Parts: sequence; C-alpha cells; structure tokens
Amino acid sequence: MKVLGVIVEYNPFHNGHLYHLKKAKELINPDYTVAVMSGNFVQRGEPAIIDKFSRAEIALEMGIDIIFELPFLYSIQDANGFAFGSIGLLDKTKIVTDVVFGSESADIKTLDIIAETLYNQPEDYQILLKKYLKKGYSFPNARKYALIEYFEQNKILSKEQILIIEKSNDILGLEYLIALKKLNSKIIPHTIRRKGSDYNDENFIGNFSSATAIRKLWKEKKYELIKNAVPFKTFEIIQREEKLGKGPIFIEDFELSFLSYLRTLSRDNLKKYYGVNEGLDQRIIEAAKHTNTIKELYHNIKSKRFTYTRIKRTLLNIYFGITNELIENINNTGPQYLRVLGFTEKGRELLSVMRNKVEYPIITTPSNYVSIIKNIERDLKNKRKMWNIDKKTYFKMIEYDFKSTNVYSLYYKNKEYSRYELDKKMKIIYRKGKI
Amino acid sequence: MKVLGVIVEYNPFHNGHLYHLKKAKELINPDYTVAVMSGNFVQRGEPAIIDKFSRAEIALEMGIDIIFELPFLYSIQDANGFAFGSIGLLDKTKIVTDVVFGSESADIKTLDIIAETLYNQPEDYQILLKKYLKKGYSFPNARKYALIEYFEQNKILSKEQILIIEKSNDILGLEYLIALKKLNSKIIPHTIRRKGSDYNDENFIGNFSSATAIRKLWKEKKYELIKNAVPFKTFEIIQREEKLGKGPIFIEDFELSFLSYLRTLSRDNLKKYYGVNEGLDQRIIEAAKHTNTIKELYHNIKSKRFTYTRIKRTLLNIYFGITNELIENINNTGPQYLRVLGFTEKGRELLSVMRNKVEYPIITTPSNYVSIIKNIERDLKNKRKMWNIDKKTYFKMIEYDFKSTNVYSLYYKNKEYSRYELDKKMKIIYRKGKI
Repeated sequence: MKVLGVIVEYNPFHNGHLYHLKKAKELINPDYTVAVMSGNFVQRGEPAIIDKFSRAEIALEMGIDIIFELPFLYSIQDANGFAFGSIGLLDKTKIVTDVVFGSESADIKTLDIIAETLYNQPEDYQILLKKYLKKGYSFPNARKYALIEYFEQNKILSKEQILIIEKSNDILGLEYLIALKKLNSKIIPHTIRRKGSDYNDENFIGNFSSATAIRKLWKEKKYELIKNAVPFKTFEIIQREEKLGKGPIFIEDFELSFLSYLRTLSRDNLKKYYGVNEGLDQRIIEAAKHTNTIKELYHNIKSKRFTYTRIKRTLLNIYFGITNELIENINNTGPQYLRVLGFTEKGRELLSVMRNKVEYPIITTPSNYVSIIKNIERDLKNKRKMWNIDKKTYFKMIEYDFKSTNVYSLYYKNKEYSRYELDKKMKIIYRKGKI
Repeated sequence: MKVLGVIVEYNPFHNGHLYHLKKAKELINPDYTVAVMSGNFVQRGEPAIIDKFSRAEIALEMGIDIIFELPFLYSIQDANGFAFGSIGLLDKTKIVTDVVFGSESADIKTLDIIAETLYNQPEDYQILLKKYLKKGYSFPNARKYALIEYFEQNKILSKEQILIIEKSNDILGLEYLIALKKLNSKIIPHTIRRKGSDYNDENFIGNFSSATAIRKLWKEKKYELIKNAVPFKTFEIIQREEKLGKGPIFIEDFELSFLSYLRTLSRDNLKKYYGVNEGLDQRIIEAAKHTNTIKELYHNIKSKRFTYTRIKRTLLNIYFGITNELIENINNTGPQYLRVLGFTEKGRELLSVMRNKVEYPIITTPSNYVSIIKNIERDLKNKRKMWNIDKKTYFKMIEYDFKSTNVYSLYYKNKEYSRYELDKKMKIIYRKGKI
C-alpha cells in the first residue's frame, strides 16, 4: 500500500496547489493521500486568511483523504522547526510511504547531498558557518556562504548548485530531508518543480497565482481575478466565509493588539522567548514605541541580520509567550498527537488502519483531550498497547493549539464566532462519497 | 507657611472638584496648594478619559499650583496602595503641611479611630478578619464585619459609625490616615463632606455631576449637559482634545487588545501578577475564552469575593506584567521621585523651596531620567547632598510611567500622536500669571 504525504498551508488552496497535488499523485500513484496542514497561523508568521476548518474543507474536496493539523507551535517556527514538526507528524502516522514536496530546483540529488552535510555537521563546515555568522549575516545567508566554501574545498557541488537553497521551497525541502534523516524515517522523499509564481510574488500573473497574490486580491476585493486563480470550491468557501463575517483575516487586524502589548514589555523580559537574541529584543522594544502600523513595525525592526519572516515569527512567539525552553523541548519530542481536522470516506478506512499502528493518539474530538490521556495511562498500566507520548508536552502542545484558535477567532468580523472555543465546539469535517 | 495637598484624579475636573478645592482652601487658608494626580490610568482600573497632560493643564487653571503625577504603579492599585503612594508623595515634597480629602461622612474622628485599629492590627481584630475572609467575603466586606464585631466588643464605636466605611471616599480617606501613620508623617489630615453625586452615580443630576456621569455624557456626545457640570476650562479642553483626535478614551477601546492577550495566557502564568489569587486566575482564563466584550468579561469574572474594581485593576496588572514582587517592593519604598506635570508662576516659587529640602529627585524633564540618577550618584559620592533613593525601584517605577503612556497613546483616535514617547516629548506645562 502506498500512502502519499504532503505538507501544506493552503492559504488559500489555489490552482498551483491543485497542479502540485495532481503531479505528486502521478509520480507516486498512491492508494491514499494525506496532508499535514498549518492551523490558524502559518509559517510566514501571520494568521491564515481563512480558518483551518474552512481550509481543511476545501482540501478534502480537492483530493486529500485525511487532513492533519500541524500543531501551532511548529507552524510558526523557522523552516527547521516547521519541517521537523510536519515530517515528524507524517512519520508518526506509520502509514505514509512517500512524501512529495514542490521546489524551485526539483533537484533531489543536490538537496540530499546538502542535507547530509547539514545533518552530519562536519567540523570544517561548522567553522565556516561560525565565520559567516560572526560577520553579521542572517542565519540563512551565513549557511549558504559556509556551504559554498565547504563544497568548493571538497569539490562535490558547485557554487551554482548550492545557490538553489536561496529559494524558499528549496530551503524548506532541505529541512524536510534533514528531518527525515534525524528521525531515521522510512518515508521516501521526492520533489517536483513548482509551477507558477514564486511563493512571495505579490503580482497576479494569471491562472497560476501565488497564495500571496490571491490574498492581496482578496484584500482589494478583486473577486473575479481570484475566481481565475483558484478551484471553484475555494472560491465558494471564500465567499461563504466573507458572508459569515469570518474571513478574510490579515495581520493588520492584529495591529493594535500587537503594538499595545509590545509597549508593555521590558527588554529584560524578552530574551526568554524563542527567536529573541542577537539584539532583536532592543530593536523590537524601540520600534514598538515609535510606530503605529504593523508594517512599519516590521520595517523598523528589520536589519541585515533579521529577515522579515524571522521578525514576524518572533513577534508571534513573544505574543503567545513561547519560550526557548518550550521550543527546544518540542524540537526534541516531535508532535505528541495526530489531530485530524477532516477526512473523506476513503480517508476513514485509512484512519482505522492507522489506529492499530500509531504510538501517539489520533485526535478527532479535541474536547476529549484530557480523557484521551487517561485512557492512554490505563493502556500503559495494563500493558494493553504501546504508547510513546510525553504527557506534559502533549498538554502544552494541544493547549497552544486551542489558544491560537481562541485568539484567531477574536478577529472574525462577526464577533458572535468569538464566543466559543472553536476547537472544542467544531465537529470534525467528514466528506461523504467518492471524489 | 501652609501648603495644602490634595489627592485627585480629575477625570475630568468638574464642579464638584472645584467646590471641594474651594472648601479645602477655606478650611486651611494655605499659601500654596499642590495636588498629586493619577496619570493616564486611574484607580478604578481604567484609562483616564483624557490624558494626564490635559488634565494637569485644567487643574493649574483651577487653582492648583503644582501638579505631581502619582506613579502609574500606585495609581491602579487598591485603596491601600493608592493611598500609600499618594500620601507618600505628598510627604516626600517636604513642604505639604495639611491634606484635605472629601468623604461621605466628613467624620475625621471616627475615621481616625478605625485607622488606628487598622494600623495597629490588634490580635483580636486579626482573628475576626480571618474569620470573615474564610466565609468568602471580599476583603472590604470582611474588614467591615470584623471591625463591627471588634468595636462591639470594646464599645468604642457603634455599628453605624463603622458603616461609614462602606462609602468609597471614606474607605480611601481611611487609607490616607493609615498611610500617614505608617510614614509617621507630620502632615495634618482634614476631611470635608463631598458635595453632589456619589462617586459611582451614572445618572446626571444637574450642576454637580460625578465624573462617572460626565464620562457617560461624553460617550453619548451630550455636550450641553457636560457644559453645565464642569468649569469652562474643562469644557474647552474636552472639545480641543476631541478635535485633535486624542480623547475621549474608554476602556472599551482596549477591548480587543485585552481579550486577545488574555486568551494567550495559561493559568500557571497568572499567579505571579498582583491581585491574582483566590481562584481569580481560573475565572479570568475561562471568562476570556467565552466573551467578546470587556463589560461581559468583567461580568463573567465577577463573584461575591471579587469587586468590579478589583477585577479591573487586576486585569491591568496582568496586561502590564505587574508582579506581586514589584508591588510589595513599591509598597515598601514609596515613590522614588516627584514628577511634576505642570506648575503655575506661584508654583515655581514653591518648587525652588522644595529643591533644597527633598531627598528624592523632582523630575520636570523625564527624558533626563537616566542622567538624574548619574547626578545623584555624584552627589552621594561627594557627600554634597542627602538622597534617599533606591535606584532599581526608581528605574522600574518611572519606566512603568513611560510604558503606561506609550500604551495609552496608541488608543488616541488620531494615530499620529501614537508615534512618540509622549512622556519624553511633551514639555512641562507652565501657567504664567496670577490665577
């Protein structure tokens, strides 16, 4: 049995995503396809434009059999943490055989050689990395220059080959490969070339627009252009969510809350939060006092050493009180549960296969999150089943999922939806019938 | 030389305040009158309706010679902390001879007997207090019943006499008297009867409306009714501030920011903040998840044990990260500086008298707050002058003043005023000429 795994954000699901999914299926010819998807906050350090429930609903319609939620704590981390969480989750399903990711290079061989180096961290490489960090380069750049110099010495890869890791999807792909190695996973990685716009391209370029471009179109209410760039189901749900007063949600909606909170902080409080180092604390505190928009805040914090996404993610870490200690811990343990946001009729079969294999709980009713642990403890006591869970981390991790949804839901335009803990109230999405 | 001190919020300055000031001056016949005033946040646990700069401006016009700012950390504490900070500040001016406060009873004798008991805390009283706290009464009520039973036993005061401390101004007055005793202050306390509405009366009742009623009128844009209830200068500045896009500021403006932040918190993080005990943490966390307005939040947290103002103040403590440790410390040290928001021509003479007497810095240019300490350290080294300052507390205290202004300023309607650290940018208010 072949099960294809993909790692996605679908923010929102567009024609490029559909193309990628189709190509990936052609390549693997899987019996089932599952996805791990970011929840209400995404890796670029922003809220998703529509909530995870709606995004899961679309994905099930477009050919994913089970949608797992990437725990919030991984979804807003750098490529390294994001990849470790999502690959870890796929690995823990115990049924995923292949993972396919899109990349600019589509050169799995080169990526794998680089991944091997980054995984093994040979001493020569480490020295070079330190050299470039000392020069004040951001981590991604320091790593790039260190790799170029390292491979120049041993002549395995050319400079041009290394430069593929300048592209965001190649970088992410690299981290997926490293994570697979770390986990000693049996999942086979594949990559296919990304079609259409660059991830960050703000300009609309026809039927293959990037998610960034589509979000911009939505902000500008250019619905006809969105319609051309997304499957009909996406368009339908975009319209529904707007009518309900839920989406679209932008980082600008968080502007006053973020700035206000940042202005309460002192420099000495900040260093405990993940990502706050190398003087970023001072830059954040100062910038917050003198800006009145979030865009300007990012701009004023920005320096050669800190990329925009790094800044955005770090601000979320601060806001949610995510400490170094917590991230170090979860980057050790990996996901502690497999939360299912939705599944198809076909996906249901796969879930029952999974249930006999997994060593971490499959969560379909999050409001039961406490009793799930009680049952696991009973199993462990009776030696009825093998579980691998770290209880303390489990609670932290899922409570952060709940928190992130509770915060997100406050920013729906229709505040009626803000009154509930939606993670505990929403029913799992089940899509009946053949796709 | 007689110097009258008054403790005020002037939120905003109205006819009742003018009446009180006139009566106090008639009673004392002072050479000078100074006031200690809350800054941008007031004791009821809310932002002031117009900022401290405007309120100081009005007060100078109405007959106050120097306006000192009560440090933020005291201004949002319970009657006990508020009184200790404000009486402490007046005491540290070294020139205030008399303090006059308004009270419902105007019975300084009874208040003083009760204050003496609360200051000395005789063992019999302590046992009674514990008994009523155990029964689940809020602290003010437990104290009231304990006092009634205590004085019933020794027959010094009747139940009716004790019941005067049910009124908010008598309670505050009581705390002023206790603070004077604690500080062994030479300032002589007096009280006069409050004219007009109760502090909390929301209904407009003619020319003597409470500040609460006036704020409500402003919310409803009933300018003509405000005009009748405040001196012309107040009315003028209310109109100016609204035109500038600064005031009025209501707690509702903070709604989304507060709720959003509260939803990021965990119960185990909360106990370190001042006022969070007796299960209040659990009530706050739960209420925040299920409410979408701040009024409803207060309502859902409310219980017999927690008064509304207690809840409101505690939420500010949480938002600003004000810990038990910090409040215990400042309730030991008292104010570490005398920040002047404004003064009249007459007040200027008094300031120069003060300068030779004080053991804490008089701050007229807050942006110099670091160099002020450097100068003090030089003085101490050269034994040129006696200073009593605790450096660490000084920095904490004034940085919280800055933070509170920086947060407050974000909620001006005209966000142009949000771009500055106003405490460092605004010039001190100087009112030339005779009043």
